[in-house]
Amino acid sequence: MDEAVILSVSPGWVCVHWGWCRFSGNLSAWGSSGDLQQTHLFLVTSLGGCLEGCSPLDPAALVGANTAAGPRSTHATGLGHLLSRLLLPQAGQEYLQRASLGMWGHEWRSGGTRDCGVAFAGVWCERKSLYPLFPHGRVINAGKSQHNEDQACCEVVFVERRPSLRGRLPSRESSGELDRGRKGFYFHYWALFDGHAGSGAAVMASKRLHLHICEQLRDLVDILQDPSPPPICLLHDTRAGPAEPSRVPLTEDDGEVPNDAVPRFHLEKAVSHESLVIGAIENAFKHMDDQIERERSSQRLSGGCCALAAVYLMGKFYVANAGDSRAIIIRNGEIIPMSREFTPETERQRLQFLAFLRPELLGKEFTHLEFPRRIQPKELGRKMLYRDQNMNGWAYKKIEEDDLKFPLIYGEGKKARVMATIGVTRGLGDHDLKVFSSNIHIKPFLSCFPEVRVYDLTQYEHCPDDVLVLGTDGLWDVTNDKEVAGVVMEVLTSYEPNDPCRYTMVAQELVVRSRGVLKERGWRLANDKLGSGDDISVFVIPLGGPGNYT
Amino acid sequence: MDEAVILSVSPGWVCVHWGWCRFSGNLSAWGSSGDLQQTHLFLVTSLGGCLEGCSPLDPAALVGANTAAGPRSTHATGLGHLLSRLLLPQAGQEYLQRASLGMWGHEWRSGGTRDCGVAFAGVWCERKSLYPLFPHGRVINAGKSQHNEDQACCEVVFVERRPSLRGRLPSRESSGELDRGRKGFYFHYWALFDGHAGSGAAVMASKRLHLHICEQLRDLVDILQDPSPPPICLLHDTRAGPAEPSRVPLTEDDGEVPNDAVPRFHLEKAVSHESLVIGAIENAFKHMDDQIERERSSQRLSGGCCALAAVYLMGKFYVANAGDSRAIIIRNGEIIPMSREFTPETERQRLQFLAFLRPELLGKEFTHLEFPRRIQPKELGRKMLYRDQNMNGWAYKKIEEDDLKFPLIYGEGKKARVMATIGVTRGLGDHDLKVFSSNIHIKPFLSCFPEVRVYDLTQYEHCPDDVLVLGTDGLWDVTNDKEVAGVVMEVLTSYEPNDPCRYTMVAQELVVRSRGVLKERGWRLANDKLGSGDDISVFVIPLGGPGNYT
Repeated sequence: MDEAVILSVSPGWVCVHWGWCRFSGNLSAWGSSGDLQQTHLFLVTSLGGCLEGCSPLDPAALVGANTAAGPRSTHATGLGHLLSRLLLPQAGQEYLQRASLGMWGHEWRSGGTRDCGVAFAGVWCERKSLYPLFPHGRVINAGKSQHNEDQACCEVVFVERRPSLRGRLPSRESSGELDRGRKGFYFHYWALFDGHAGSGAAVMASKRLHLHICEQLRDLVDILQDPSPPPICLLHDTRAGPAEPSRVPLTEDDGEVPNDAVPRFHLEKAVSHESLVIGAIENAFKHMDDQIERERSSQRLSGGCCALAAVYLMGKFYVANAGDSRAIIIRNGEIIPMSREFTPETERQRLQFLAFLRPELLGKEFTHLEFPRRIQPKELGRKMLYRDQNMNGWAYKKIEEDDLKFPLIYGEGKKARVMATIGVTRGLGDHDLKVFSSNIHIKPFLSCFPEVRVYDLTQYEHCPDDVLVLGTDGLWDVTNDKEVAGVVMEVLTSYEPNDPCRYTMVAQELVVRSRGVLKERGWRLANDKLGSGDDISVFVIPLGGPGNYT
Repeated sequence: MDEAVILSVSPGWVCVHWGWCRFSGNLSAWGSSGDLQQTHLFLVTSLGGCLEGCSPLDPAALVGANTAAGPRSTHATGLGHLLSRLLLPQAGQEYLQRASLGMWGHEWRSGGTRDCGVAFAGVWCERKSLYPLFPHGRVINAGKSQHNEDQACCEVVFVERRPSLRGRLPSRESSGELDRGRKGFYFHYWALFDGHAGSGAAVMASKRLHLHICEQLRDLVDILQDPSPPPICLLHDTRAGPAEPSRVPLTEDDGEVPNDAVPRFHLEKAVSHESLVIGAIENAFKHMDDQIERERSSQRLSGGCCALAAVYLMGKFYVANAGDSRAIIIRNGEIIPMSREFTPETERQRLQFLAFLRPELLGKEFTHLEFPRRIQPKELGRKMLYRDQNMNGWAYKKIEEDDLKFPLIYGEGKKARVMATIGVTRGLGDHDLKVFSSNIHIKPFLSCFPEVRVYDLTQYEHCPDDVLVLGTDGLWDVTNDKEVAGVVMEVLTSYEPNDPCRYTMVAQELVVRSRGVLKERGWRLANDKLGSGDDISVFVIPLGGPGNYT
C-alpha cells in the first residue's frame, strides 16, 4: 500500500497513486485509503499545474484550441467537463470510482493570463462502519503567480501507534488492528492553503501538515480508543499509552508527608478525548511552522500561507483555521459557521496588547493605538478618534507627538494591514517578513495557531444535501454564506441524491460564479459586481452521502 | 429638579427624592426623570439596608413579628407584598406612580443570618416619544456580610452639553433643549455590582459609575444628535462638538508638499455613533476604576466588584459587563445573550499571554502553563497534560522543574482561580489584592474594561412579554437561561399585560426560586438541588410595556 503506482505518466497532468497520496500545484487531488475492514482505491487528478518534482507545464500547450479561441469562447468551452468512469477491481473487492476530469481554461484578464485549472475526482466507496465521505472540490488560479498560491490537499492518513519502549498494555492490544497488523486508526483530511508572497510555504504545508497531525496523534492511539477519560499523567516516559490508574485517588502530599487518605486532586480537571485531538492539531500547526522556519533557506521557501484544515476522526469533524479562509456547514438549509477569520481587524486587540507590552517590537516606527486615518503633523494638539487594546468603541484623545507614528493596525476590511504589510494575522511561514525597507519583523505579531471547532456528525441525522464547505478568501470575498448555501441547494437539487458528482458540480459552480464572467468592464458576477481576482479554492464535503441511503 | 426632597425620613427605610436619585445598600431603587417634553416623578424605595450616610439598621428591628415566627414562616410571610399607590401631581401634570413595597425577611441559614431585603417600585409614566421603560428588580443578601455585597443602581441621567469655549455651532443650537434651557439628552441606566472581599468598591461604583458615563458622554452631545458621521478629528480643542467639515477631502500630505488634489484619507475608517457610546462606556469604567484606586485609602474602600450596566440611549440598549454577572434578552420566548462572563476559565488565554510576556508578574511562584491538577515533585520527568496561551486543547509534555510551580489558572468552573486568589477576571477595584501571604499583586491580571453589547430596540416590534434580565451570579449559578426564560413567561402570563407589577413579580420569583427553601439539608431548589448561597440581584426591564399598547 505504501508504494506509489503511476497509472498515467504525463507529469503534472494525470497521476494516480496507490497508498498515500499527496499533491501540490494548481490542481486538486483526492485520496481515499484503507479504512477498517476495507481498503479503498484513490485517485489523484491534476490539471494544468505542476506536481512537486515535475517541471511546470505551459498551460497554453495543454489547452490548444481553447486558448486559440480567445477569452470569451475559452471561458465557455472551459466550463464543459469530461466524465471518465473507471471501475477497478482491487484485492478481491470492487470499487466504483468516478474520476471527473474537469475543465481547464486559459483566459486573458487585464492583459495578463488567468489560469483556471480545475480538476476533480470523486471516489465512491462502500463504507458501512464509517460515515461515507466524498471529497469534491475545485481550485482556480487567478494568474497572479506562476505557481498557484492556493494549494490543496486531501488525504486518508493512517495513524500508527508508536512502538512502546516497555511493552504494550495487554488490554489494549486487541483494538485497532487495521492495517496488516499495524495498530492505529485512520483520519480523513482536507486542507486549503492560501499562500502570499510566494507559494513556497503553501506548497510545503500542503505536503506536510497532515503528517504533523499524524505525528501528534501517534501518542494518542491507545488513549483515544479507550472510552475511559484520558489519564492526566502518564506513569512511564514511554510514548505509547497511559499507565496512571484512572480511579486510584492520590493524596495532595508529595510523598514526604505520610499518605493520610485525604483525596488528593479535588480540583482535578476532566479532559476530554476531543480536547486531546484539538491539542494535537494545534501543536501540529506549530510544528509545521517550525519546519518551514528551519527549512526555508535550504528549500527556498518563500512567503507564508493561511491554512484551513478539516480532520474527520471517530465521528467528529475538527475544523482548524489559521487565516482568512472559511468553513461552513450547510445542514437542512441552515448555515453553521465552522471557523472565523483572523485578520488585523478581528485580532486587533491581541496585536495591540502585544505591542503595548512589547513596544520594542514596533521599532519606534509604529504606535499601538489605532486611529481611523493617518494624522497630519499640523493636527498635533487637536482631538482625534482612537482606540487601544482595551476598547471596542472609539473615543477622542488629544493628539500627541507619539501618535504621529504609523498605526500598528491600519485600514479597513480587506485593506486592513499589520504594520502596513500583511492582511492576515494567523498562518504558517512568513518568518522573513519585514516592514518594507526596515528591519522590523512582522512574525511576532502573527500566530501559527489555529482555532479548532468541532462538529459531531453523530449528533444529527444528515441528509445527502448536508455539506461542509471549505473555501479560501477568493470565494468568500465575493460570495457570502447565504449565497453559498443558495448555490449548494440549487445545484444539489438538480442532481440525483445518490450521484456523487453532484458535490463536484457544487464546488465547480461556486468557483465559477465567484470568478465571474469577463465583460467589457472586467470580470463580473451575475449581479454585475466585480468578480474575485484572487485564487479560489473550494471543497464541498458531503455529510450524508449515498452510502447512507436506505 | 436638582434638589432632593425627602418624603419619608426614616433613614434607610423609605426615601423619595425629586431630581437625581441614587442609592446603595441591600435595596433597590428606581428612578425616572424628565424626558423630552415631560418630566417624571421618580421614587426610591429602600428596605432593610443602609443608605449612604445612614447607620445600618438592624434587620431584626424592622421585621418584628416575622423573625419571631421562625425561618419557615418568615419565608412564607416574606413573600407577601404590599402595594402602595401614589398619585402625585407635579408641575401641572399628573403621574401615576406605583410603589410596591415588597417583602422583607430575615432568616437563619447555617446558623448565620440571611437577609432577604427586597424592595421595588414601579414607575409608570406616559411617554410617547421614547420607549416606555419600567425598571423592576430584586436584591437579596445572603448574609455573608453586614453590608450587602450586591449593590444596585437605577437612574435616569441628564447629559448636559459641556459649555463650549468658543461658542456653539448655530445649526445645532435648536436641538436637545430639554431641561430648562440646558442642552443635552437623557439616558436610562440600570446596574448591578457584585462585590467581593468587602462592599466598598461595589458601593462606590453604584454611586458613581453612571456619573462617569455621563461625563464621558458630555463631549458627544452635539455629535450624537447629528445624523452625519462623527468627525474623525475635532478642529479646535474645545470640548463642545465637531468642527471638521465632513465632506472636504484632505490630502495625504502634511502641508510641506503642495496640495495636489489627490484625495487624502482613502483608508479613512467610518466610525459610527454607536461605537462612540461604546467607547464612552468603556472609558467610564476605566475612570471609575481609577477613582476607586485614588480614593480607596481615604474612603476605606475594600475589595472589588463585578459590574453589569445597561444604558438605554437613543433607541438602543448598551449592555456593559465586567465580571461574572449576566444579561439576557427574552424576546418572543427566544433567548438572546447580552453578555458573557469573564472568569479565569473564559479569560485563561489572555492571562496566560500576559504572564508569558511578563513573567515577573508571577513572582517566581507561579507558572503560566495550565495543568489539570497540581503536580507532585515525584512526577518530575513524567508526561502530564498541559496547555499554554495558544492552546484550547490539551497535550502531554514532560514535566520539568519549572512546571512544579503553582499554575496561574487553577481549578474548574466556579472554583477556578487566578493565582489561587480570585474567581473573576474583570471588574472594578481590587487594587490592593495580593496572593495570600505574598507581595504578588493580582490587579495586573484583572481588567476593568467591560465588553459592551448593543441591542437596537427599533429593529424589532416588542410585546409586553419581551424583557431584558440582568442578574448577578447568585442567580445564574443555580438558574440557567432557559429556566429564567421559563419563569419570565410563567409569571408574566399570570398578570394582565398592562400591569407594570408583573415585571416586579418576575424579578421576585427569580430571586426567591434561586435562593430556594430551607429544608433539613439546607436551602433547596424545587429540583432539590442546593439553592444559591450567594447574594442575588435581578433586574427585569420590559422592552415593550403598557405605554405601547394599542
